[in-house]
Amino acid sequence: MKPTEGRQRVMIEDVRPQIDCGRFPVKRVVGDNFVVTAAVFGDGHDVVTARLLFKRGRDRAWRSVPMAHAGNDVWEGSFAVEETGRYSYCVEAWVDDFATWHRDFKKRAEAVQDLTLALQSGALLLDQAALRAKKPDAARLRTAAAEMRERAAMDQTSAEAKATGAAAWKNILSQERLALIDRSPDLRFATRHSTELELWVDRERAAFSAWYELFPRSTSPVEGRHGTFKDCELLLPSIAAMGFDVLYFPPIHPIGEAFRKGRNNAVDALSKDAGSPWAIGSSLGGHKSIHPELGTLEDFQHLLEQAKAVGLEIALDIAFQCSPDHPYVTEHPDWFRHRPDGSIQYAENPPKKYQDIYPLDFESTDWRALWDELKSVFVYWAEHGVRIYRVDNPHTKAFPFWEWVIAEVKKTYPDAIFLAEAFTRPHVMYGLAKRGFSQSYTYFTWRTTKRDLTEYFTELSQTEVREYFRPNIWPNTPDILHESLQKGGRPEFILRVILAATLGASYGIYGPAYELCENVPAKPGSEEYLNSEKYQIRHWARESSNSIAAIITRLNQIRSTEPALRNLSSLRFHPVDNDLMICYSKISDDRRNVVLAVVNLDPERTQWGWVRLDLGILGLAEDIPFIVQDMLGGAEYVWQGERNYVELTPETRAAHVFRVIHPQRAMDDKPAK
Amino acid sequence: MKPTEGRQRVMIEDVRPQIDCGRFPVKRVVGDNFVVTAAVFGDGHDVVTARLLFKRGRDRAWRSVPMAHAGNDVWEGSFAVEETGRYSYCVEAWVDDFATWHRDFKKRAEAVQDLTLALQSGALLLDQAALRAKKPDAARLRTAAAEMRERAAMDQTSAEAKATGAAAWKNILSQERLALIDRSPDLRFATRHSTELELWVDRERAAFSAWYELFPRSTSPVEGRHGTFKDCELLLPSIAAMGFDVLYFPPIHPIGEAFRKGRNNAVDALSKDAGSPWAIGSSLGGHKSIHPELGTLEDFQHLLEQAKAVGLEIALDIAFQCSPDHPYVTEHPDWFRHRPDGSIQYAENPPKKYQDIYPLDFESTDWRALWDELKSVFVYWAEHGVRIYRVDNPHTKAFPFWEWVIAEVKKTYPDAIFLAEAFTRPHVMYGLAKRGFSQSYTYFTWRTTKRDLTEYFTELSQTEVREYFRPNIWPNTPDILHESLQKGGRPEFILRVILAATLGASYGIYGPAYELCENVPAKPGSEEYLNSEKYQIRHWARESSNSIAAIITRLNQIRSTEPALRNLSSLRFHPVDNDLMICYSKISDDRRNVVLAVVNLDPERTQWGWVRLDLGILGLAEDIPFIVQDMLGGAEYVWQGERNYVELTPETRAAHVFRVIHPQRAMDDKPAK
Repeated sequence: MKPTEGRQRVMIEDVRPQIDCGRFPVKRVVGDNFVVTAAVFGDGHDVVTARLLFKRGRDRAWRSVPMAHAGNDVWEGSFAVEETGRYSYCVEAWVDDFATWHRDFKKRAEAVQDLTLALQSGALLLDQAALRAKKPDAARLRTAAAEMRERAAMDQTSAEAKATGAAAWKNILSQERLALIDRSPDLRFATRHSTELELWVDRERAAFSAWYELFPRSTSPVEGRHGTFKDCELLLPSIAAMGFDVLYFPPIHPIGEAFRKGRNNAVDALSKDAGSPWAIGSSLGGHKSIHPELGTLEDFQHLLEQAKAVGLEIALDIAFQCSPDHPYVTEHPDWFRHRPDGSIQYAENPPKKYQDIYPLDFESTDWRALWDELKSVFVYWAEHGVRIYRVDNPHTKAFPFWEWVIAEVKKTYPDAIFLAEAFTRPHVMYGLAKRGFSQSYTYFTWRTTKRDLTEYFTELSQTEVREYFRPNIWPNTPDILHESLQKGGRPEFILRVILAATLGASYGIYGPAYELCENVPAKPGSEEYLNSEKYQIRHWARESSNSIAAIITRLNQIRSTEPALRNLSSLRFHPVDNDLMICYSKISDDRRNVVLAVVNLDPERTQWGWVRLDLGILGLAEDIPFIVQDMLGGAEYVWQGERNYVELTPETRAAHVFRVIHPQRAMDDKPAK
Repeated sequence: MKPTEGRQRVMIEDVRPQIDCGRFPVKRVVGDNFVVTAAVFGDGHDVVTARLLFKRGRDRAWRSVPMAHAGNDVWEGSFAVEETGRYSYCVEAWVDDFATWHRDFKKRAEAVQDLTLALQSGALLLDQAALRAKKPDAARLRTAAAEMRERAAMDQTSAEAKATGAAAWKNILSQERLALIDRSPDLRFATRHSTELELWVDRERAAFSAWYELFPRSTSPVEGRHGTFKDCELLLPSIAAMGFDVLYFPPIHPIGEAFRKGRNNAVDALSKDAGSPWAIGSSLGGHKSIHPELGTLEDFQHLLEQAKAVGLEIALDIAFQCSPDHPYVTEHPDWFRHRPDGSIQYAENPPKKYQDIYPLDFESTDWRALWDELKSVFVYWAEHGVRIYRVDNPHTKAFPFWEWVIAEVKKTYPDAIFLAEAFTRPHVMYGLAKRGFSQSYTYFTWRTTKRDLTEYFTELSQTEVREYFRPNIWPNTPDILHESLQKGGRPEFILRVILAATLGASYGIYGPAYELCENVPAKPGSEEYLNSEKYQIRHWARESSNSIAAIITRLNQIRSTEPALRNLSSLRFHPVDNDLMICYSKISDDRRNVVLAVVNLDPERTQWGWVRLDLGILGLAEDIPFIVQDMLGGAEYVWQGERNYVELTPETRAAHVFRVIHPQRAMDDKPAK
């Protein structure tokens, strides 16, 4: 069967970015310049023109920006995203008869050919453009056509006339007239790429954030007392002073009594044991209630206000699972799987049993009501001022649910941010990010060698993954005290947080365990903490001299002053001739700010070596010296060329985090006398 | 908005092969095993099952084959394609409750847990399977369920019962019963990938062919006389003896008189000049007529028969352009572009004019009739026995036309093969292949260094391109006598045809110019032949001692005996420590036949060096010697390990084309005494 219109002669292929054929939106943040490329080509030698169409949300009309040919049939266009929410984009292209005529006309004129017919053809095209144009443009186009016809009517045959004509007509069309024509393109046979692609724009914090995780119940200044939201308020200034912008709490809901776990995950809790905050729900309520010992809803809201005042945003942990005491269990038994004896199926990984947890059944016949209820949990906390959610184990809940619920919540709260706590296989983690999660935990915790870090962060920053998966880099969590921290102690804590804060645009630590370098595992070979806060209240010696808070504070200051550290996509690794040293750079979107980090991955010994910089990436010339200022240590060096020497010592100088001063810019930036 | 069914918990992503999101079909030939992979994963820890669905043409029912987990959530399945024509394929996957139960049951039994509830759950699943199953299966499933319930009813509580039960139930389900269940899967919440993908299956010649191009008018045994189809018949045995399987003729239609080009492309032809066969159409007819001096339609059909008898298939040149004398010009003036003075627009590339050619206007308002007429040209020759078309300059005709016409012709003639003669930019060449061309000319002609050849053939054989672009490798054409042939002479002709015949699964030469090593350009710096057959009749000294026909014959023999040379996708390059030597291998689909070629790219000097074989790719062990038999030169060597020495001399031993004899297979293949 023939197509409806067989004259659409321009092909548009390989529109990028594009996730799974447009099945999922690409992600950006407000302020980004969104760049789209496409392969665009027609048959034959006619000139092709392409433009990028885009619109916000449910706008009907497309806006457009011209695309430019970037070589080899690849075209590029861009627009700035200025608001949060959904955008659509599409590429349109067509054979441009006027541009073809103009190109050929110039060649004919240069070759001093008779131009009579060419002028007549041009006049015809101008007449046609006039028919498409709006009133004032139309009149001007008709004037241009008339002038062209007049000229065509003159004698073009004599050699002299040809020569004069050629010179005159070479510039027959002013820039103004060419712009007129561009405003009324001939789109009769224009091709539009078959897929309208989607772009989701978040606020900047979705891509650039520093998280601090803390158990509110461990915040009391008095040892042995249950911490409260009021106690948390007292800590806000010091956390803000460290430079974090997100303060994340594990679940704050009533904790179940049935099968409650004791200290260090003991199967039988003692009566005074606090239980795990992830065993959610009791007679006191479920996911919309607050554990009474933490305070009231009013206390929580007061805390939110106080946090905001010091530049901190509270993130809540959303863990969709229930203790056997959760109200859902009696109110909605259909939301759980039942065993043949009528009992509710607890969590199991045979032969292991987790009887304190009832998973929700996403194959329930009542799934629609279940989805609505879970959505209402996000909405409830959003209504009370929360906009950031750290979602617990999203990979054990149905993917279609996540895709739906995140889109639903964002409809009302486009500033909502969802962090996926999924430590599982790559396809699953990427699959969750595609379906809407704003940020994701990563394998960073287990990537400790130069080779592993380089490979993983190259995948995250240089492949299609970066279009939808925003890594949030954590050197520890309440679940993971990595062997390297257990063995490397304080120097390892220092180097790992330097990596996290500079490799990732978003990162986080679980504190005060992190800054106090808490490194004793539950047992040898385990990644669990001894006396884990998951199962008990802890009292922390926050002012310990062992604390690395000062270093973390400095890192967050650097992150705030250096725009290069706000993105991930500019990350590039540079070789060092020592496998225990890693070197990488980032560049700000406007290319004015360049950060270069060199980290000693050995927590025990001084390491030295020669870095081999990719000068092209850094915008540096081989023969002109440049300055590198260490923003961590304070030293400043004059470097030149690709090979430069670095020596780093654990703890005292674990890394250089350089600002690279371009020689030219150094001149430019000097104040005028 | 919620999805219609929110319980489809399995995600299917990245189904491969897939061209432009399924916009274009993948290509294979009859006999291929078609392998499909996909990323398949669900939430949580339930067992997932996946299968590959496929069907032929317009079949309603899908057939299915199980897919297997190949690691890291990637699944793989395949089916053999046995007929030409269109296939559809799709991936389906679901959470497999029974498989999950079975996995967990085995773990419980191994851990000697109480199995009562597990057995009851299993019985329930068997009952449900019985409801889905066909009659005999259903009864057997119900029996299995009943047995399971009986066992559950027994005392499972005593330690002894537990131990016995565990041992007994570990193998509770026979292979036969498991197969029963697999036959009635629970597809209620199965996910089917959103796109039904397409596969086009050609006959083998579409992927594996050896072409010989010849001007029929230059075939007369008498110098100065116009060759005829009858003269061509006399040459058939020798061309077949060289081992070619496609004999391709430039256009055989009446040649225009208006603006006819003379010898060596002279603007004014002398009255006796033969003209260019590509200036198609005169008062004697157009694309469905035969130039009278070649013979009649009957002669042509007789030639087709004679060719077939010696294993040669005739390919026609389809060049959709008209001489000013073509009947279309008066019968369908709307199919051409008109100038303001009413004259028809001839071909131009300003300031150059090609007044002997009128291009067809694919933006004609009468485009539908134009498409139908052009289709009728293919159909006309198909009805007269032609199935292979070499299409001239397809990139200067509208792409939507090609996509339509190739599909239309293939509906009636699924054995039709279309070769795209497009020497242009990569996106355009690949774009034509995506739209249906069975084979394509390539840049081989201009790729002469090891680096360029390696890069280009790696792109053609190892990237997604191989799914739809089938290169046909030509060292020369009537339009292109490359500088390397001009300068390198006979040794260069030898080495280039060795490369063409072994790098490509399809290749071709323009003869007898090629085998006679014709290498004089029209003028220095030109790629045109002096006294080109495009503009005049030539008389060839076919029996010249300079001819390399014997080498070409040997190459085609090797191509026919070595299955490894039938594919392109197994091509791999191996390093040689000499930039003027290139080494590569191919392996047959069944992995039993391995060909290894080493070519001296220098037509002037002996070159030597050490190849470094990738033994893994060749299926060889480091420590066991193997035999390489040179099928070109006849020598045989015992090699071992990755490093082996090679020395090659232009002309006498320009290359080795080895058959690699695996030591084990050499033993196997020995005849029993």
